[in-house]
Amino acid sequence: MKPEDRFVEKVRALLPQREGVILGPGDDAAVVAGSSGPIVATTDMLVESVDFLAGEEPDVIGRRAVAVNVSDLAAMGALPSWFLLSIGFPTARGEDFPLAIARGAIARGDQFGASLVGGDLSNAAVIVVSVAMWGNPAGNLMTRDGASPGELLYLSGDPGRAAAGLRLARRLEEFSRHGGAATPRFSGLSTPHVEELLRAYRDPEPRLALGSRLAREAIATAAIDVSDGLGVDAGRLARASGVRLEIDALALPVSASLRAFAQIEGEDPVDLIVNGGDDYELLFCAPESAEEGFEEIAGESGVALWRIGRVVPGSGVILRQGRNEREIGDAGHDHFETPR
Amino acid sequence: MKPEDRFVEKVRALLPQREGVILGPGDDAAVVAGSSGPIVATTDMLVESVDFLAGEEPDVIGRRAVAVNVSDLAAMGALPSWFLLSIGFPTARGEDFPLAIARGAIARGDQFGASLVGGDLSNAAVIVVSVAMWGNPAGNLMTRDGASPGELLYLSGDPGRAAAGLRLARRLEEFSRHGGAATPRFSGLSTPHVEELLRAYRDPEPRLALGSRLAREAIATAAIDVSDGLGVDAGRLARASGVRLEIDALALPVSASLRAFAQIEGEDPVDLIVNGGDDYELLFCAPESAEEGFEEIAGESGVALWRIGRVVPGSGVILRQGRNEREIGDAGHDHFETPR
Repeated sequence: MKPEDRFVEKVRALLPQREGVILGPGDDAAVVAGSSGPIVATTDMLVESVDFLAGEEPDVIGRRAVAVNVSDLAAMGALPSWFLLSIGFPTARGEDFPLAIARGAIARGDQFGASLVGGDLSNAAVIVVSVAMWGNPAGNLMTRDGASPGELLYLSGDPGRAAAGLRLARRLEEFSRHGGAATPRFSGLSTPHVEELLRAYRDPEPRLALGSRLAREAIATAAIDVSDGLGVDAGRLARASGVRLEIDALALPVSASLRAFAQIEGEDPVDLIVNGGDDYELLFCAPESAEEGFEEIAGESGVALWRIGRVVPGSGVILRQGRNEREIGDAGHDHFETPR
Repeated sequence: MKPEDRFVEKVRALLPQREGVILGPGDDAAVVAGSSGPIVATTDMLVESVDFLAGEEPDVIGRRAVAVNVSDLAAMGALPSWFLLSIGFPTARGEDFPLAIARGAIARGDQFGASLVGGDLSNAAVIVVSVAMWGNPAGNLMTRDGASPGELLYLSGDPGRAAAGLRLARRLEEFSRHGGAATPRFSGLSTPHVEELLRAYRDPEPRLALGSRLAREAIATAAIDVSDGLGVDAGRLARASGVRLEIDALALPVSASLRAFAQIEGEDPVDLIVNGGDDYELLFCAPESAEEGFEEIAGESGVALWRIGRVVPGSGVILRQGRNEREIGDAGHDHFETPR
């Protein structure tokens, strides 16, 4: 178990029983009873040099802060309505800086039906952006704990690209610090690939249409958004559901951009998918019978769906790669542990 | 207008119209339409060395983060139900540190009916604690904009003590950095006074019972919590209501502890009340006829109520002190402008 998850366990142990709590800490979002239906709420704090690179454009920081919260709600099958935005920043940067963060957040929220209704400003030595967002379930609530043996495991989109993008972004930063051109070429990588990978990291696309569809039609039995790498997030889902997940490495989607990047780096793209964070794709379980509708759902949601493995009795997450099998349920990025 | 208020104006200008927003940015909390009644939501971010002193006990940081959010809801006449807690901290401090913050927050929330339901952890170079809290109106919504000429102006509790406490806390910090005893005596100030002033700053008491009572009985026509000093917060209320506030310096409550502190400092205690932040008392307007019930309300709420002035046509905030009159509507602390 990751330190972040251990921490959540300890916090849960401190909480008194309280009527109206449908789901407390430990899933992608909290659920409380509203007077006529559940409210689904989440919060994420982004810190400079940890959750985004120093020097990132303020409007991109705002977009990202909103997107990662939308992703949490998407993983619960909820639709966002409102958000609060707190910004800590060095006041010497002037008020245009937080205003640009707010502008990015407002524009990004607008695309998902989430409106800014309040916030807070503070002076701070580093840039910190915290969003709290809430809304209502689109249908069934999707939690992490509903998977059963016999079901299959699915993943959306093109994971691993964000990890590649982060590495490129770091090199860009390094490069510009030494006075290089604003957009250097990365030897062997096409400009569209570079741009695609960078965008995957900097400006992730939360899978809200997919999440709400899976919930509305009660397709997924369990779901989580992949923010800390496929390994660790699959591990969380497995632990919450009390099952074992078996993932077939050959079934993992490797985009052309990720393949090109991994080749140049002399790395297995599967490792970038398993260990890399920040993808914000949805990982979910469903019975095989659900696959019938997937083509249409993928089309409507604008994102590909991949069958990557299956749910079996037991615990942990196994990656099958040729003849090898390895445990990956604790692999991946941990916000608690590792600065980046 | 303070930079923080100017910023809010600019953010408001960016916001598209959205159905369901009863009150957007610019008051103590936001109000949105829930399916069967309004939801009142607020957020505050506390940053180390800005909103609390470096070296503060983690459980006190957690208590404070909850208290200032409860205060925002109290000023709206709302009762809190739920909160989310995000903590950024140097991970080298170990997980006991954020756990102690959470423990303080949970315990403090419990006293006001607010339960922790979720949160986020991040590595950060400085300690940052962000709380988002929401609940429902206890009765009428109390906003800043309902005051009318002819009404009177009231203030709760013993303001100014937090500003004195902050100054004492800073000296304590300075003192301990030079290897002094843990609890030095401040020459001329009794130990109970020192403790009272320190507590007023470090562990403020939100006026929730008072705020919800004023709302339930529709007593206050406008209200605000005094977080940035009486001057600037009265200025905000005056501006929102389109009125002028006249405050009588002789009517301002000066506690024995504040009087003793001010005497030793050779300062007018009124200046500490007008300019000092962090008191979290309630400032509100009501017709004179409401005063009949104040004794009982004060008793029930456990806090004194003071008539400190009146509402007249015009704009700004005037402090009358003997023959002098001065404009104080822009006086006070600004979180945007001034680190402390």
